[in-house]
Amino acid sequence: MLLGSNTNGHYRDNILKLQELQTIAIVGPGLLGGSIALGLKAAGLEARILGFGHRQSSIQKAIQIGAIDQGYLDLAPAKEAQLVILATPIGRFEPVLAELASILQPGTVITDIGSTKRYVCRLARQLLPKPLHFVGSHPMAGSEKRGIDFARADLCQNATCIVTPTPSTSKPALRLVESLWQTLGMRLVTLSPAQHDKILARISHLPHLIAAALVNVSSREELKITGPGFLDTTRIASGDINLWHDIITSNPDAINGAIEALKRQLDQIEQAVRSGDAEKIRQFLAAAKKKRDWLAEYRIKTHRLGS
Amino acid sequence: MLLGSNTNGHYRDNILKLQELQTIAIVGPGLLGGSIALGLKAAGLEARILGFGHRQSSIQKAIQIGAIDQGYLDLAPAKEAQLVILATPIGRFEPVLAELASILQPGTVITDIGSTKRYVCRLARQLLPKPLHFVGSHPMAGSEKRGIDFARADLCQNATCIVTPTPSTSKPALRLVESLWQTLGMRLVTLSPAQHDKILARISHLPHLIAAALVNVSSREELKITGPGFLDTTRIASGDINLWHDIITSNPDAINGAIEALKRQLDQIEQAVRSGDAEKIRQFLAAAKKKRDWLAEYRIKTHRLGS
Repeated sequence: MLLGSNTNGHYRDNILKLQELQTIAIVGPGLLGGSIALGLKAAGLEARILGFGHRQSSIQKAIQIGAIDQGYLDLAPAKEAQLVILATPIGRFEPVLAELASILQPGTVITDIGSTKRYVCRLARQLLPKPLHFVGSHPMAGSEKRGIDFARADLCQNATCIVTPTPSTSKPALRLVESLWQTLGMRLVTLSPAQHDKILARISHLPHLIAAALVNVSSREELKITGPGFLDTTRIASGDINLWHDIITSNPDAINGAIEALKRQLDQIEQAVRSGDAEKIRQFLAAAKKKRDWLAEYRIKTHRLGS
Repeated sequence: MLLGSNTNGHYRDNILKLQELQTIAIVGPGLLGGSIALGLKAAGLEARILGFGHRQSSIQKAIQIGAIDQGYLDLAPAKEAQLVILATPIGRFEPVLAELASILQPGTVITDIGSTKRYVCRLARQLLPKPLHFVGSHPMAGSEKRGIDFARADLCQNATCIVTPTPSTSKPALRLVESLWQTLGMRLVTLSPAQHDKILARISHLPHLIAAALVNVSSREELKITGPGFLDTTRIASGDINLWHDIITSNPDAINGAIEALKRQLDQIEQAVRSGDAEKIRQFLAAAKKKRDWLAEYRIKTHRLGS
């Protein structure tokens, strides 16, 4: 049994609090997985942290920097964990969840760090039989850099984490996962998986595709003329291809909805430009400037800038 | 006569070299106009620099920081100049050029700093009779800040200036204008007005509209969730509304062409996302990342970053 001396009654009620956990498993201790581990250690959590990866060198590095206590190349020892954090690329979630389903003990809570949530929550529903408890998470921390070498204890500090419970999510499991992110200093936002994917399609996936399209639409000779504004606008197009490939292929409907919404905006601008409707162009620019200025102020107040 | 003791032969041949100029007029000594003046002083140019504005305070500030030697609220004293730099917003070009046409002496060279060039060169052709010499310029330096208070001698240093001569442009006038920008440390690129507007529509005007559209497509509540990537991608949407209004209304055809080109890219992505064509999505992202990474390297090598 999972919960040792604390086992009294229905398994749902026996989910431990974060401070009571004996063992946490992090599958994929890279930039974010490693930073979560370092952050939990820095917060004084006493649980043993096990790391699971597919490269010996990453595992060794994670041990060396004090992120994990033990590391493994196979998942079997994850059976000791009361909380599992799935931190691999989304493309690896399906085989990993399938394997974890046969390893983990009843009552184990599983969360993830994937950037899309309907696909991930559907996978978890299909692959993790009750009484395993999955709670979808999307900690929005990271950088253009990848891998355990760039992990740091404060990566999540002051950033936003979206949790995506569904009506069937265990409340104690949700509380444990919320407590995990709060312990790392994250600001929590609760959305349904569908809400998450729709909003993120507009504020993250669409901007990425647009940045890529803006780069692709011009030749290198033309790009040589660009100023610093263009580099800023397209910075995210230098992001990791595999990561973004997984995000885009796992959120197709919402992304196409966002593209359609943007195309409607572009149609309106085109029409205003064609007809020389100076007032409409001014309103469009003014609305964007006002909202963007507000957002910059808002972020200065509530988030750490940078990272 | 304009050229004093140097007048010998046809007026075209009498255009002075930059170092020989006695008087330069800057109409609109704001951020860029003021920085040009400061940069010319810093380069040791001995010409007197006259500033023309419509706010007493800006003129006084320009004198105070040593950018201009004399300042005026009306254009009449510009008749003494052998070189006029038009640095007002594009929306003011038409009345200013019309007035300058009746003031300037034959052989005077006029250039500008406007961000679109077909409209400006057409205005100059219509409003400036020969023997006045117009050469279109687009010095790509500046910042989100506006006004003389932010002017600095090195604003143009290492940035690109596009000059847009036409077949009828006087060669000595072109050489004078090129020498002006080179003296300020700018990298010169020569394009036709139409080439300029087509390329800038894709690398500057379209990104601005896209940044604005990305902001407008989401609500404030949704934007609260955004990470630092979104702030970067949309930074230019916080730019000056009047400036951008003038740019967009003065380059309608090329901007709509650029929007159409982007929409074709978006159509391709949508199709690939809908059909689950993972390989096509990967190729699209990889092409953008490769080109964006190259651009970032290129700029580090050839430009000063920042500003």
